[in-house]
Amino acid sequence: MDPIHALTLADVLAEHRRSYPDQTAVVCRDDRYTYPELDARVTRLSNAFRAAGVGTGDGILWLGQNCHRLLECLLAAARCGSVFCAANWRQTAQEMAFVLEDLQPSVVVWQEEEIGPTVREARELAASTSTWIRHDTGEPDGYEAVVASAAPDEPVDEIGPASPVLQMYTAAFSGRPNGALLSHTAIIVQALMMARLQEIDWDYVYLNSGPLFHVATLMTTMATFQLAGTNVFTPRVDAEELCRLIESERCTGAFLIGPTLDQVLDINRGGRYDLKSLRTFAGRAEWNEMITVDTSPWARRPAGYGQTEVMGMLTFNAVGGPATGTAGRPSPVSRVRIVDPEGNEVPPGEVGEIVARGPTVMTGYHRRPEINAERQAGGWHHTNDLGRREPDGSISFVGPKTRLIKSAAENIYPAEVEGCIARHPAVAEAAVIGVPDPTWNQSLKAVVVLRDGASASAEDIIEHCRASIASYKKPRTVEFVDRLPRQGFAVDYDALDARFGGGGYPGRG
Amino acid sequence: MDPIHALTLADVLAEHRRSYPDQTAVVCRDDRYTYPELDARVTRLSNAFRAAGVGTGDGILWLGQNCHRLLECLLAAARCGSVFCAANWRQTAQEMAFVLEDLQPSVVVWQEEEIGPTVREARELAASTSTWIRHDTGEPDGYEAVVASAAPDEPVDEIGPASPVLQMYTAAFSGRPNGALLSHTAIIVQALMMARLQEIDWDYVYLNSGPLFHVATLMTTMATFQLAGTNVFTPRVDAEELCRLIESERCTGAFLIGPTLDQVLDINRGGRYDLKSLRTFAGRAEWNEMITVDTSPWARRPAGYGQTEVMGMLTFNAVGGPATGTAGRPSPVSRVRIVDPEGNEVPPGEVGEIVARGPTVMTGYHRRPEINAERQAGGWHHTNDLGRREPDGSISFVGPKTRLIKSAAENIYPAEVEGCIARHPAVAEAAVIGVPDPTWNQSLKAVVVLRDGASASAEDIIEHCRASIASYKKPRTVEFVDRLPRQGFAVDYDALDARFGGGGYPGRG
Repeated sequence: MDPIHALTLADVLAEHRRSYPDQTAVVCRDDRYTYPELDARVTRLSNAFRAAGVGTGDGILWLGQNCHRLLECLLAAARCGSVFCAANWRQTAQEMAFVLEDLQPSVVVWQEEEIGPTVREARELAASTSTWIRHDTGEPDGYEAVVASAAPDEPVDEIGPASPVLQMYTAAFSGRPNGALLSHTAIIVQALMMARLQEIDWDYVYLNSGPLFHVATLMTTMATFQLAGTNVFTPRVDAEELCRLIESERCTGAFLIGPTLDQVLDINRGGRYDLKSLRTFAGRAEWNEMITVDTSPWARRPAGYGQTEVMGMLTFNAVGGPATGTAGRPSPVSRVRIVDPEGNEVPPGEVGEIVARGPTVMTGYHRRPEINAERQAGGWHHTNDLGRREPDGSISFVGPKTRLIKSAAENIYPAEVEGCIARHPAVAEAAVIGVPDPTWNQSLKAVVVLRDGASASAEDIIEHCRASIASYKKPRTVEFVDRLPRQGFAVDYDALDARFGGGGYPGRG
Repeated sequence: MDPIHALTLADVLAEHRRSYPDQTAVVCRDDRYTYPELDARVTRLSNAFRAAGVGTGDGILWLGQNCHRLLECLLAAARCGSVFCAANWRQTAQEMAFVLEDLQPSVVVWQEEEIGPTVREARELAASTSTWIRHDTGEPDGYEAVVASAAPDEPVDEIGPASPVLQMYTAAFSGRPNGALLSHTAIIVQALMMARLQEIDWDYVYLNSGPLFHVATLMTTMATFQLAGTNVFTPRVDAEELCRLIESERCTGAFLIGPTLDQVLDINRGGRYDLKSLRTFAGRAEWNEMITVDTSPWARRPAGYGQTEVMGMLTFNAVGGPATGTAGRPSPVSRVRIVDPEGNEVPPGEVGEIVARGPTVMTGYHRRPEINAERQAGGWHHTNDLGRREPDGSISFVGPKTRLIKSAAENIYPAEVEGCIARHPAVAEAAVIGVPDPTWNQSLKAVVVLRDGASASAEDIIEHCRASIASYKKPRTVEFVDRLPRQGFAVDYDALDARFGGGGYPGRG
């Protein structure tokens, strides 16, 4: 520990208490707290956690919707050196039980409203021995009572900013979800980047209308916190309620996605709500009339490439000017390489795995030593995603890595070939697998779904590939199917292998 | 070392080489290098340093004016784990010799033009045993030849970002200068803050027209570097040359202070140079016509409080909105407290020493273990400056700490009382000393210089203080003098003590 150079989330809160004594920190239904009030509540809550036996590195699980108390729990975890996790409240009881068993939290803060039966079922399934605190109740053992009765003394723990404070479960594309552990520094550094690109400052009022168990929303929440702005919470996405909150709290930012935006537009066609405080993406003329068109770097060139494991964004379209790559350029706080399966950097124009270093990279997955060893091979964080460095230095995201196919000495990533096939006008979607080949180790088989009414032959598909990518990457055979098998969102490559004779993948025999 | 989360200045350069292959990194007279070219030169230079015996933590001293090679030496030091220092080239030979003896650099990169005789005299005075490399020569042992002949291989050293990479000598208000050691992280984090507040991005072209041995200029240089902008160097401030460079390089930023600005205005009254690319502070109407008025947060509310020891700014007027404090609010990456002599936080409204924590704080002074122990007492960096937390949470800078006066149990800082006396309309300037007092340990004596033609009695001065600050802080006696004794810029309190019987300071008997 090096306290002179440390900056933790709890330190940021302690600063804001002093520097912004009158500023509203959080608004949630009828609750509204200034930074000094938030700081006092967080201190008491962290003392309550300690009193409940929460030790350094122990888990605090949130099983509820968006709420100021979610942020309080994260900050209290920061203050006492424990790790906060907000689970997806839309999950089934079985999925929640998995999180309970995997995280083994010391404390669970939970919600009865809307999700009580699921939560209780999960608790039973997991035979949880945690301390359970319900947050949406006035009962004597509820959250507010716990906070009110806890000691008000500021703890003296020295917490290292490199230690994990947040655990976020990543989407389970295949297999079980993994809990990415993110440090104070990761959150703070990403918050500074988002604050810059979204032009967030002390006068930003962020409507937390996206799910806070996703990094996409949370990045902006934490940027707003870091710059001493105001976070407004709403438990779920209800367009009418969003309109009401934007008007009454003069929100300057909100997490809005397509369908919600259309609903807001419908509801407010008559101008019932004044939404002019909201700075957001431009849309149709009537939308632009209703809101203030955001001119921040992020709004002008949104997105980039990122993942939960790097606390959100790794590359930004808003960074580094015009780019031919689809994902812009690396964040100024990140290091990015495109590497081959041996970890060697590949030249611009070639596809490889995106690997990263820098202060926003996770410390690892919770209780996954084997996956961690793989993901941190060679001292770089392996994203499991494929990308390409373009000649102008920018980065394109190519697709998830899934399996590597090895044809003779060549490494071929299915996603690159799939992307090529998908650009054929007759193709709706495609998957590529490797099949054992006596001469070349493996050869490529494309499994293709054609568009309704369109037609193409196997030769057409193969020729199309030969014309646009290196010849060794073209499929040798093509199968046409009505639809691709899926597990959740992801194509089920195991099922494809089983059906079409896939196999011989490197490292798997 | 934790390479996955590390980010050093050398890492940033290695990223820029990949992400900005065509971007101009530096321009200096006839030299112009892209990021890949700069990276290749820096790699060779760092290999040359290593070959010259430069070890981890060893010093690299720059005795020259502003030049792209200064930045190259800093980045080469970053790449091989050594520490770069640019000395003030306006110093006397004796002062330069002091730096040579104090830093004991392994390598000195020096300049013949303008300062050759002084440098050579300093070298002799210090009997330097360093490796000396002249940078402004085509001779076979000169800088360019050294770079050209060094190995091009990228070094594999893993450098920790918390290790010092930059040493900057602070102004010697009294006694000898001290070399503040600043880490990679300190420079990078401050660069991100300055980039945000000055709106620096990849398209920023910064004219390095301020002295690069001062942190005020260097903060913006490094922000420009961090965001992959272009740094343009000019060896000294010549208004005509600045106009030429702003026009030809389309500079968007420059370090300009009052007198230079007036000269530029004079030279360019006829519009000979197109300076419209320059975004800078608003001034007179004709100036605003000539340039582009900067609307960045920094331009709208410049400055704050800072010092070399925290890599520049610690508080910003541009942060946190309207403030009653003269120095704005703490940087979002810094922790700030106002403390009494025992290190306890004082309440808002009271004067105390400004202390700080956070990633921008220096690692310490080079070879000053005793001063370091004082300055890092209690795990906080002591700035040696006085400040006050205002009721709105903002910070006011009060003055240098100099001596503490103890009257009975009360701590009194001369700067606060001096500030009060200076607000009396008849007073030009004032200094306050402590004189031994049998009852109160010390009592206060004010030494006052009146404005020309103005008059005031000792009683007037004392009454003025009684009316505006706590009664125990008022001077008991007042002496009128024609001028205050000074050492350099600073009032010579030792001389005042000697003349007026000062003494009895706490801790000094």
